[in-house]
Amino acid sequence: MSLIVVGSMAFDAIETPFGKSDKIIGGAATYIAWSASNFTKPIRQISVVGGDFPKEELDILEERGVDLEGVQIKKDEKSFFWSGKYHMDMNTRDTLETQLNVLGTFEPFVPDSFQDSDFLILGNLSPAVQLSVIDQLKERPKLVVLDTMNFWMEVALEDLKKVLLKVDVLLVNDSEARELSHEFSLVKAARKIMTMGPKYIIIKKGEHGALLFHEDNVFFAPALPLEEVFDPTGAGDTFAGGFMGHIARTKDISFENMKTAIIVGSAMASFCVEKFGTQRLREITKEDIDKRLMQFQELVNFEIELV
Amino acid sequence: MSLIVVGSMAFDAIETPFGKSDKIIGGAATYIAWSASNFTKPIRQISVVGGDFPKEELDILEERGVDLEGVQIKKDEKSFFWSGKYHMDMNTRDTLETQLNVLGTFEPFVPDSFQDSDFLILGNLSPAVQLSVIDQLKERPKLVVLDTMNFWMEVALEDLKKVLLKVDVLLVNDSEARELSHEFSLVKAARKIMTMGPKYIIIKKGEHGALLFHEDNVFFAPALPLEEVFDPTGAGDTFAGGFMGHIARTKDISFENMKTAIIVGSAMASFCVEKFGTQRLREITKEDIDKRLMQFQELVNFEIELV
Repeated sequence: MSLIVVGSMAFDAIETPFGKSDKIIGGAATYIAWSASNFTKPIRQISVVGGDFPKEELDILEERGVDLEGVQIKKDEKSFFWSGKYHMDMNTRDTLETQLNVLGTFEPFVPDSFQDSDFLILGNLSPAVQLSVIDQLKERPKLVVLDTMNFWMEVALEDLKKVLLKVDVLLVNDSEARELSHEFSLVKAARKIMTMGPKYIIIKKGEHGALLFHEDNVFFAPALPLEEVFDPTGAGDTFAGGFMGHIARTKDISFENMKTAIIVGSAMASFCVEKFGTQRLREITKEDIDKRLMQFQELVNFEIELV
Repeated sequence: MSLIVVGSMAFDAIETPFGKSDKIIGGAATYIAWSASNFTKPIRQISVVGGDFPKEELDILEERGVDLEGVQIKKDEKSFFWSGKYHMDMNTRDTLETQLNVLGTFEPFVPDSFQDSDFLILGNLSPAVQLSVIDQLKERPKLVVLDTMNFWMEVALEDLKKVLLKVDVLLVNDSEARELSHEFSLVKAARKIMTMGPKYIIIKKGEHGALLFHEDNVFFAPALPLEEVFDPTGAGDTFAGGFMGHIARTKDISFENMKTAIIVGSAMASFCVEKFGTQRLREITKEDIDKRLMQFQELVNFEIELV
């Protein structure tokens, strides 16, 4: 079913303990589209790039069923650029450089042909931009999913609170959940955030997996234990794309199906970290995905016998 | 089936961000016995205490099916004492005081009646003491499980390596696995440790759950997301007791059954942290345990559908 993806399409330059990338393709909406397009189409992309963004990158996404009518190309400007360096534990990183470029003045536009979309995922962006997309939609999608980050909690908390009132699912990592709720316990944090709008809270814990909260229910998906995490950039967006892609494919927004969607997201993220940038996502087949989903089942399934 | 538990029986004084305990009952073998005795008997305890250790504590363990013939009581000496303070994240702690007392000269003795035991769990103690127990057993138990800690890797690595050659399952936490293997990746760490003796490696990650490795197989058990972790002291030992207790009850040392044993261990640990010391373990019933096991199933079970 139709899915709108909103977010950055950009360049990244990444250093990890294992190596250093050139300036490569990145951006939240890029990762989400690469991931979700394994499961559903059309994907309706809303973003902005500069004249420096390679046409081949847009073409290849189009071939995968991504409709780019909502992607503004500002020929005389440059695409958003981020450069960062990961520490040995791969859970922490330093930003070396951020060039907002086209993202600094981004005013998202929802084309008419994107109205009536079934699902909406708002990748990490300024809450004002996220809100603008929601407000432009004449009909509310069946499920609205929001990603955000600590930066917006610090500089645009009031806007963020307004967006939270309009979404169904919030994706944050553990430190962001703590910052937003002022609660250390993730259980308490999720409960508090559920009073701020979203009925479902997904707390991503990187290599320690992800938790899904809804009312009094909680579900946990592990991360696949990997020999090497090569580059974690985009793993959260890839997770979000797998989650949303599965929901859009199955058209089922029940809590039970969200559990599976979180496993799908975790499986997709486990590919993402195996190589720099989107490289691994470009290689994998449906067979690879199925195989990995089976690995997740092996990883957590057990027979229970009561005492 | 019969299970030998070796380890300390001691006093602890604990400070957490939530409060401060008096001098309370602790020790690895105490927690293991409290936990395992929900599942199996007889438990054959090998330990040492001073004249200050309360008789009622020994009596109550005996009532639970713990045979104390292997517990030496040194009337004129004092029991081992540890005092520590947890930081806000409850994953790190400072030791405030350690008084070895009776543990400083502990020479474990395996009574004749403990020969022919089916299972053996060696709680965290000096590797020389652990080795002595193994060597006193005329017949090798069906499964030997070893817990240890970073301290022994630093002061008694050669002894530890000798013990490792004689055990089936090693229990360590993530930082200990890294220290022992000199590998950062836990997958690589487990693989390396498997060449040092144990065929099964359990890596405990505290609030982030536990991993079980065997050959090329891996299984993950989450920790139950709790509103409050009140006191983590003894959680690892309680986990070990639940694991070993389940194995002893089912007499099944297959990898499949170890998965369930790890879930049982995680369930028991989730009770332990709810109150100071062994307090919560003294309160729970079989019904509470069954209910919690069902919660673990809810927490991780999902329906898979391939793409």
